[in-house]
Amino acid sequence: MNDSPQIASGPFRLNGRDYQLPACPVVAVCIDGCADEYLSSAIAHGHMPRLQQMAASGFRGMARGAMPSFTNVNNAAIACGGPPSLTGISGNFFLDPDSGEEVMMNSPEYLRAPTVFAAASHAGRKVAVVTAKDKLRKFLSKDLEAGICFSSEKANETSMEENGIEDAEALVGRSTPEVYSGDLSLFAMEAGAALLERGEADFLYLTLSDYVQHKHTPDEPEALEFYAGIDAVIGRCLDAGARVGVTADHGMNGKTTAGKPNVLFVEDELRAAFGAGVRVICTITDPYVVHHGALGGFVVVHLEDPSLAEAICRHCLTLPGVAEALPREAAAAKLELPADRLGDLVVLSTRNWVLGRSAEHHDLAMLGGVLRSHGSRYEEIVPLILSEPMPQSQLENAWSDLRSFDLFPLLCPVSS
Amino acid sequence: MNDSPQIASGPFRLNGRDYQLPACPVVAVCIDGCADEYLSSAIAHGHMPRLQQMAASGFRGMARGAMPSFTNVNNAAIACGGPPSLTGISGNFFLDPDSGEEVMMNSPEYLRAPTVFAAASHAGRKVAVVTAKDKLRKFLSKDLEAGICFSSEKANETSMEENGIEDAEALVGRSTPEVYSGDLSLFAMEAGAALLERGEADFLYLTLSDYVQHKHTPDEPEALEFYAGIDAVIGRCLDAGARVGVTADHGMNGKTTAGKPNVLFVEDELRAAFGAGVRVICTITDPYVVHHGALGGFVVVHLEDPSLAEAICRHCLTLPGVAEALPREAAAAKLELPADRLGDLVVLSTRNWVLGRSAEHHDLAMLGGVLRSHGSRYEEIVPLILSEPMPQSQLENAWSDLRSFDLFPLLCPVSS
Repeated sequence: MNDSPQIASGPFRLNGRDYQLPACPVVAVCIDGCADEYLSSAIAHGHMPRLQQMAASGFRGMARGAMPSFTNVNNAAIACGGPPSLTGISGNFFLDPDSGEEVMMNSPEYLRAPTVFAAASHAGRKVAVVTAKDKLRKFLSKDLEAGICFSSEKANETSMEENGIEDAEALVGRSTPEVYSGDLSLFAMEAGAALLERGEADFLYLTLSDYVQHKHTPDEPEALEFYAGIDAVIGRCLDAGARVGVTADHGMNGKTTAGKPNVLFVEDELRAAFGAGVRVICTITDPYVVHHGALGGFVVVHLEDPSLAEAICRHCLTLPGVAEALPREAAAAKLELPADRLGDLVVLSTRNWVLGRSAEHHDLAMLGGVLRSHGSRYEEIVPLILSEPMPQSQLENAWSDLRSFDLFPLLCPVSS
Repeated sequence: MNDSPQIASGPFRLNGRDYQLPACPVVAVCIDGCADEYLSSAIAHGHMPRLQQMAASGFRGMARGAMPSFTNVNNAAIACGGPPSLTGISGNFFLDPDSGEEVMMNSPEYLRAPTVFAAASHAGRKVAVVTAKDKLRKFLSKDLEAGICFSSEKANETSMEENGIEDAEALVGRSTPEVYSGDLSLFAMEAGAALLERGEADFLYLTLSDYVQHKHTPDEPEALEFYAGIDAVIGRCLDAGARVGVTADHGMNGKTTAGKPNVLFVEDELRAAFGAGVRVICTITDPYVVHHGALGGFVVVHLEDPSLAEAICRHCLTLPGVAEALPREAAAAKLELPADRLGDLVVLSTRNWVLGRSAEHHDLAMLGGVLRSHGSRYEEIVPLILSEPMPQSQLENAWSDLRSFDLFPLLCPVSS
């Protein structure tokens, strides 16, 4: 750390919630795809001693994420401290009602609420947001005028003007990692720790990639080694005097039986029963197709004749792999989603199935025989760990309906 | 242990699944209401060293229980190795269509499938089933001609004829514990360990009470101490050479906000909207009312006019605290329930709400300001820990849709 850093501490209010900046650095980590089993396995094998110590002297519990259990949805929710009905981010992709086109929801214009990063920066903190994948960087840095924001994926392209840092590779001491690797995440973690240690940031958000979790179960050596790497950097942050909080954007479950994906092609099924006026959007779709082949636990259905929505929901409940089907208004109310960015109905999968559009839209071969994915209710509940005890005023909520987007309010609690 | 015990090992088939009895004692433990957070907290505090060692050298993962996430439902499922559509046990209580009366489903006549206990006994094992509460004892001992079966609750009433053991208090070395206590469970655990150590049983099922979990959060001293006690007895079983498996019947979540229960009285709501022909059964109801006041996350609705079921499901989705509402056939298919023991529809709650019948049917005062309960999807996923590694042939399932009723098949795997 640099000499006697002056750390801005003070209150602010954001999206209806009160925050009190502590007089120490704050580090929030979102371990992408971190089903709680990954932490339990790594701890059992002695690979996460620092996290285990956090659980003992601080807090370890289970938080409910935002639905659908996707990356952009939950990063936006964590950044703003509220559900998709606040943030406007209801998936990775959506069908723009104005243009009729499928567009990625990763640009700042789609985020409807201010972020805690911009708020903390305005309050005088040195903010750094480091993402593994570049897709998250742009909307997380919305309105962040001062501060640092870059991705591991494009660490070799950083500039002071765009990212608030000239040479991110030099910061970490190695070159930009492969995009399809666990190292992409460890690079982001290490960049955050270096910024903290150098006193260049005192309010950090480090958000990783779920490449390892898509490809490896919690007990595989690749996963255990990956989590040991994460734990080492968490240790550096704790040693630098930071208050640390860890959560996940979503969990992860296997979706195969005897090596074959359990896939329901929803558009194929519904067109066979209801005709051509059915269009299915796989809102998990993103540019990183090797992870999951755009197959997840949640799809949105658009209808030429919206009056069919109730009947189609009933039909969906007769199909294998479907857990729930909700018309737009019920989905908006029950899943806290923005009604104007939904289709006419949404469909959610069971624990070991995924939902696709049609057989021709998905290339199962690229999965290499492995399909672990997310999006459903069964990847909604995620771990939440704090380095300090849960504030007394939050204990009731902590053991009833803790939310993962409570992470920053919990790291910056208002003393009662 | 007694001298060179002859342990019967051999294959048998039960309810469509193959079992191979191992040449060592088998101990299965169902920790009632054991949300995974209880284990994580206790392990973080160093209170469960033996379980942590099991997780490292064996397996620790998350299993999906049977719905609704109630005690009788899941004990029956574990005993038979299949869902309620097999066992017939769909709740603690149900409305008998023949009599029109609400009856407890804890008598052997309601269990539709043979149990692994009777099968293992027929195969030559010395079976012991020890329950904390007496309510489970009768149906778990169905067709168990030889063997031991008694409850801690009535340990002072055991007889050779009824229970296969003369004096259960002498076995444990202390008198029958209070029914509303954690000690009720520890007594059952200790009884099992004593039977194992004396060579009087080599195939054991120990199923506990969730009094502690209803009353205490995972980080409270009472819970940590309780789990330390469980761990000590697990250690005794491991030291006696047993293969040990641990799961839970359901999880547990807080259901209050600012000290007040979040309750939706479903019959009141539906009668206001649809008239008097609506009857709600709280299938969590049992004689141990102090635990939860018959308030859980799942109710069954009976209608004078069954054609209203779809409309009432839609209405339920507009009510606070409701996560899902399914007509009988969809509930039977999606929740693996026996359609002939359901009402016209079922309603499931959100994570921190419970569903009641009507305000007059529940005495909230008896809860003493605390309401932690279960029954919903949010208490469906439970821990599953094995003292030996997951069999290779089961690894894919272990990380996709492991079920808690896989416990005995996993303890008695057929080598491939």
